[in-house]
Amino acid sequence: MTPAPLVLFAALLFAGPARFVDAAKPQEPKSLELVGDGKPVCGLGATFHSGRRAALRKALGEGVVVVRGLPESRDYVKFSQDKTFWYLTGIESPGATLVMDCKSGREVLLLPDPNKMSERWEGEMWDAADAWVKELTGLGEVLPTRDLEKLLAELFAATPKGWVSLHPFIGLSGCYDRAEPFDQRAALDPLDGRISREQALKQALETKFKVEVKDMRAQLSELRRVKTPEEIAACERASRAGAVAMVEAMRSTRPGLGEWEIDSLMSWLHRVEGASGASYQPICGSGANSLVLHYSASNRRMLDGDILLVDYGPEVDHYICDITRTWPVNGKFSARQAELYDAVLAAQRAGIAATKPGVRMRDVNAACDKVLKDLGLGGFIRHGTCHYVGMEVHDVGANNKPLEPGVVFTIEPGLYEEETGIGIRIEDVVVVTSDGCRVLTAGAPRERAEIEALIASEGVLDRLLQR
Amino acid sequence: MTPAPLVLFAALLFAGPARFVDAAKPQEPKSLELVGDGKPVCGLGATFHSGRRAALRKALGEGVVVVRGLPESRDYVKFSQDKTFWYLTGIESPGATLVMDCKSGREVLLLPDPNKMSERWEGEMWDAADAWVKELTGLGEVLPTRDLEKLLAELFAATPKGWVSLHPFIGLSGCYDRAEPFDQRAALDPLDGRISREQALKQALETKFKVEVKDMRAQLSELRRVKTPEEIAACERASRAGAVAMVEAMRSTRPGLGEWEIDSLMSWLHRVEGASGASYQPICGSGANSLVLHYSASNRRMLDGDILLVDYGPEVDHYICDITRTWPVNGKFSARQAELYDAVLAAQRAGIAATKPGVRMRDVNAACDKVLKDLGLGGFIRHGTCHYVGMEVHDVGANNKPLEPGVVFTIEPGLYEEETGIGIRIEDVVVVTSDGCRVLTAGAPRERAEIEALIASEGVLDRLLQR
Repeated sequence: MTPAPLVLFAALLFAGPARFVDAAKPQEPKSLELVGDGKPVCGLGATFHSGRRAALRKALGEGVVVVRGLPESRDYVKFSQDKTFWYLTGIESPGATLVMDCKSGREVLLLPDPNKMSERWEGEMWDAADAWVKELTGLGEVLPTRDLEKLLAELFAATPKGWVSLHPFIGLSGCYDRAEPFDQRAALDPLDGRISREQALKQALETKFKVEVKDMRAQLSELRRVKTPEEIAACERASRAGAVAMVEAMRSTRPGLGEWEIDSLMSWLHRVEGASGASYQPICGSGANSLVLHYSASNRRMLDGDILLVDYGPEVDHYICDITRTWPVNGKFSARQAELYDAVLAAQRAGIAATKPGVRMRDVNAACDKVLKDLGLGGFIRHGTCHYVGMEVHDVGANNKPLEPGVVFTIEPGLYEEETGIGIRIEDVVVVTSDGCRVLTAGAPRERAEIEALIASEGVLDRLLQR
Repeated sequence: MTPAPLVLFAALLFAGPARFVDAAKPQEPKSLELVGDGKPVCGLGATFHSGRRAALRKALGEGVVVVRGLPESRDYVKFSQDKTFWYLTGIESPGATLVMDCKSGREVLLLPDPNKMSERWEGEMWDAADAWVKELTGLGEVLPTRDLEKLLAELFAATPKGWVSLHPFIGLSGCYDRAEPFDQRAALDPLDGRISREQALKQALETKFKVEVKDMRAQLSELRRVKTPEEIAACERASRAGAVAMVEAMRSTRPGLGEWEIDSLMSWLHRVEGASGASYQPICGSGANSLVLHYSASNRRMLDGDILLVDYGPEVDHYICDITRTWPVNGKFSARQAELYDAVLAAQRAGIAATKPGVRMRDVNAACDKVLKDLGLGGFIRHGTCHYVGMEVHDVGANNKPLEPGVVFTIEPGLYEEETGIGIRIEDVVVVTSDGCRVLTAGAPRERAEIEALIASEGVLDRLLQR
């Protein structure tokens, strides 16, 4: 990897932008991010993001909304936009800010000044001089970031009331229920004490502009709870990619392979199917590791007789797939593995059957648990079965609300038997419909006979290792 | 993925730790992290890390050293330890702190209290009650983290002089030359203003204990500049994994495939070969993207006639591989591609030939550049050819020091012709020996004929897509 430039090459500053050769149109675009011509896109489309902004302004009533996108990544990893900023703009580029006045509906996008030298090194970055930004995003007013404080001073003079979201910033593989305690622990640590990025923004606005700044997190979460058709379609793309990888992981499983060979194979197939990366760390636990609910080490060789629990899904176009399947490493369920597996599958079926508008997630959970308890297996339950899914693996929204069409959540009963080292979990993502639900991750089989047939067939890893 | 536990399952708190089934010994362990039995390891071995601590104490003379490992990850990603903390301890587990008194040589490791519930969810985490920690690490005194302030008060009372490193914390895919400007920009941002984790630690120690705290970064960097045999062996494991993936990427390249299919294939093979993950973002640029030095988008389909520049290496046991190869998408170098390629290869050969103890990296750079300039191609040079490599892709150490045995660095000349959209770079990692250097990444061929033969052969991706 070339080092960062220490010297400016003056001649390059005056050259034009990098030219991209026109690419052939892919036969089957798998995601908006990966259409294959390398051109900038606006998330799920300008209409979707514009609609989200309008709905948020309506929910807030009045005041000035300030949402900051993420800066360039701190590590040498591809930039991944904060979920809140992306939801409201669709912009996947560093250093952007959105400012809105709720009452007037004025929307201003602030972008960095052009930096040709930086683009030479890092590739295309959206800037305030890019003429296509307005048309692509539907954001009619674009200013350079250096005008941000001036703009805020002007808006706050007229309306001394601000809104920020204290939802922690979230990139690829992040989730609020992990990020928020992390930020809180740093703030409380006697040898650290730094506040979160969101708290810092709130404090800076209050101090600089002498205004009251409130948290709009609740309003945003309620918007995100019910998915639009565009969001459901993105969840479907993610679900398809997740199912494809799960099927291939089954095909490639053999005693003697490492857990890491399975999870990394899946990561590859996720990307081939259009994913940006992982929704969350691969949980790929064989033997006793199947009992560790968020197992992430993936450093054990799988043995004949082990069960393998794989809970791993991709993110596609900022929406995630959360899927779990469990299968025997040697390709044949033992008697006890089969007994527990069939119980979990029956529980999940009961949960899916119970899902329809008006019921709550806790009712679905109860339907799953009842099956397991009736079978005398209640002692092996270790976790709840439902959580929302969307831009984050544990998505936002009030958990006690009645389900309605467009709500997307998981149904994932599990049994964990310490004595035998058998952990079984089956997890699918469903979207609530007008009279029930649809399973988005059905592409990965759940029937024992189907799973055994897949393991018996040739996998990509077999082909690699034949070399 | 199961949600984080909201309720404690009291019964589980009293059960024993998860039992790991004994795994079969792998025939060929590829890295210490992935020996395959899932047991904790101490980095490159207790002797190596103990030696680093002793060398640091000697360099500092007197004072109390405080080094904090990273907390649990903020995202749902596998924990990856800070480089500085790992270098001094070999400990790959969250929430650890190292305290040393330079004069007495007293070394204290502080670890969190045991948390069985957390381990049920997240897997093994090192704690102050784990009896094996002392033997494994050679750190004879282990205390719970809650004793940290008491310990520091005691040590600072005797020696009112502290040492921290202001080197920014670095995890997987991180590098100081990216992390440090990021942290500085946040501190200077009028709507952010948060200082770095390292500055916060320095300030907290100074305020709480009324002591002078100095930065030991220079001493640490000088230690890290010359690699020990253990470190060189780790660089070799990383280099092997990087070369294996590069060869397979060549074999699998076909017009019509996406750049993302190549980089993700390599990520998989890195992991199969024992890597923790990427040393840095994959740079996988086809056509005009080959001109963008840190191109990370990977979202273009590759066309017949394109050149493909791939700069991507893995991290194995905390040491990285940095390797670049360039090849034609259709398998045959065009006349102009071949001309530029041969020039870059000749330049790299000259750089390798110039490398021996006593010369400086700038001399190696000059040797490369001379070849290109003599061929009249100096106008297509865009970057320097050498940087240290070690735990970070651009590793630390004074760049102007004469080379000596054990120094590891890259030689990476490149030519970038805007007009034709041809970017060529060839990069290898070398270790300086007593009379010259050894190329660690030689497993990936550089000769045009060899490369063309590889592209013509069957790749894993061919096998996958045959389905």
